[in-house]
Amino acid sequence: MINPGTFMRSKNPPCHCLRGMTAALVLFGLACGGAFAQTDPLPSWNDGAAKKAIVEFVQATTTQGSPQFVPPAERIATFDQDGTLWVEHPMYAQVAYCLERVPAIVKAKPELAPVEPFKTVLSGNREAIAKLSLPDLEKILAATLTGMSVEAFNADVKTWLAQARDPRWKRPYTELTYLPMQEVLQHLRANGYKTYIVTGGGQDFVRVYAEQVYGIPPEQVVGTAGGTKYGVGKDGKPFLTKEPKLLLNDNNAGKPEGIHLMIGRRPLMAVGNSGGDQQMLEYAKAGAGARLAMLVLHDDARREYAYGPAQGLPATKVGAFPQALFDQAGKQGWVVISMQNDWKRIFAFE
Amino acid sequence: MINPGTFMRSKNPPCHCLRGMTAALVLFGLACGGAFAQTDPLPSWNDGAAKKAIVEFVQATTTQGSPQFVPPAERIATFDQDGTLWVEHPMYAQVAYCLERVPAIVKAKPELAPVEPFKTVLSGNREAIAKLSLPDLEKILAATLTGMSVEAFNADVKTWLAQARDPRWKRPYTELTYLPMQEVLQHLRANGYKTYIVTGGGQDFVRVYAEQVYGIPPEQVVGTAGGTKYGVGKDGKPFLTKEPKLLLNDNNAGKPEGIHLMIGRRPLMAVGNSGGDQQMLEYAKAGAGARLAMLVLHDDARREYAYGPAQGLPATKVGAFPQALFDQAGKQGWVVISMQNDWKRIFAFE
Repeated sequence: MINPGTFMRSKNPPCHCLRGMTAALVLFGLACGGAFAQTDPLPSWNDGAAKKAIVEFVQATTTQGSPQFVPPAERIATFDQDGTLWVEHPMYAQVAYCLERVPAIVKAKPELAPVEPFKTVLSGNREAIAKLSLPDLEKILAATLTGMSVEAFNADVKTWLAQARDPRWKRPYTELTYLPMQEVLQHLRANGYKTYIVTGGGQDFVRVYAEQVYGIPPEQVVGTAGGTKYGVGKDGKPFLTKEPKLLLNDNNAGKPEGIHLMIGRRPLMAVGNSGGDQQMLEYAKAGAGARLAMLVLHDDARREYAYGPAQGLPATKVGAFPQALFDQAGKQGWVVISMQNDWKRIFAFE
Repeated sequence: MINPGTFMRSKNPPCHCLRGMTAALVLFGLACGGAFAQTDPLPSWNDGAAKKAIVEFVQATTTQGSPQFVPPAERIATFDQDGTLWVEHPMYAQVAYCLERVPAIVKAKPELAPVEPFKTVLSGNREAIAKLSLPDLEKILAATLTGMSVEAFNADVKTWLAQARDPRWKRPYTELTYLPMQEVLQHLRANGYKTYIVTGGGQDFVRVYAEQVYGIPPEQVVGTAGGTKYGVGKDGKPFLTKEPKLLLNDNNAGKPEGIHLMIGRRPLMAVGNSGGDQQMLEYAKAGAGARLAMLVLHDDARREYAYGPAQGLPATKVGAFPQALFDQAGKQGWVVISMQNDWKRIFAFE
């Protein structure tokens, strides 16, 4: 919540009582420190409206006797991934994967080497690559995400994740997850919630690491999904081949549609960070009882990135947060999380 | 398991020791009855190869230190529904629902009354209805399963289930579930398994009652699924409309494909009863470690129904169990459950 004035610190007290107060604070800290450490479920969050909204929502929906109590079976919370649970700039990790897979694909099919868009990707010319058209990108996604068995794909992604490094932090992508959001996931699960990822990214791609990175099992990852084709190998063993046939485009209206297909319940809580999450938040918020809809605003160029174009932040093609979405949030009681003001710490490695 | 000779009872002992033995048995029963009641997880099963296979499989995969131990997160078991968990003869419950919904559909759209196949269904002529072609049936399914909001559909199914009665037992369809299979579901869950339904029936239809009937939540029901379309009503509330667009035909090869789409893990155990389950069982069985594949054979005309055509049982169009499937089961170590020999009790209401 962007409310920089809410928690202004009081000015320094006059000097003569400072020592006594310090001693009292130390004693207070000693007495309560352990208890605080145990009871604050969101230590990486600054006190503020966003943290308060999460804590109160969980309390209201899980305290027996509360008028907004929800039985455990119905406690569903859905999270977008890119830009909500981990870094999405300067490029979605999955797009980096697809581009970096091109040399291996061309090695297996040399006839692709002189053909666009593969030729441009192989050239390594970053400017030219950044200018590839959407149909060109789709050709690259189709070549790198389909045609192989599910097992071979999983193994490739696992290998890539182990060696790939983000260009800014020089760390594996799997370390670029937001600590405050990890705390929210854990707090929800500790209170009987099932946490789901609902991502525009590839369902099979995200499933490879979601359990390790977020504690979210494959069956709780909903994403853009293609069909598979069942077949039996020469060894008599059955296997599934990834097909270039889109079943679910899990963006925009596709998010509530995907939630219905894969979960069959309306979530109580939904968190996103871009225009593609709008319908998921509307859908969650429209149910009866306590509901929580949140949007992460990337307004911290120093510690992470700053992009909107909401609130005058720089425009972007990757995970844009339009002003209209910001205004809708205000009208519909969605909570905007300011990365700069609400997050005390962003990454576990800081 | 069809092994009628395996558990032959010994002949009556000579009369002079009968009384003593009876007394001993009574004492044994008194001493152990309570313990047996607590420790036999499958009391509606006769002792035999099928019961033994289930108990040993669960033990092997969940006992810490067992060479076949599987971590809880990977314990997935998938069950077909019609004919495996509940009665499917003489007609799938969902087909009965669709036919019985026709009058309401025609009332809302009177122009359908003189049009086939609606005219035939309205006539009530059972013989003519039984002869409807597949394209005719598809028209009825499309008219009764799509075009309404998800909420309206759920409410209709709930209302129908409350009043509909099976023609033979005159009971709600939801009571026609097999007690021995309920015990298997519970035994698996008590040992950390996630139990899934993987049905050729409609995913949305089965989800309405799966939690109440089987203790299986909507998100663990995989079925034949159509698309939905997100929209916002005049009241500003978003809703999903069921569309006549098939996303997943969850039969035959569609079962492993649906399992990958919705679960993303290969099940350790799979149970079915007809040709439509073949690929699901192959897929489950092909994984590493302990695996259990089972097929229910309906060979009990007195207590339920008898149909094959496997083993010379009468042929059927509803849930056929071909001889080739029976032979494949023998070759691949799948366990065939004989309803007649393996199930002590079939329904809870017996």
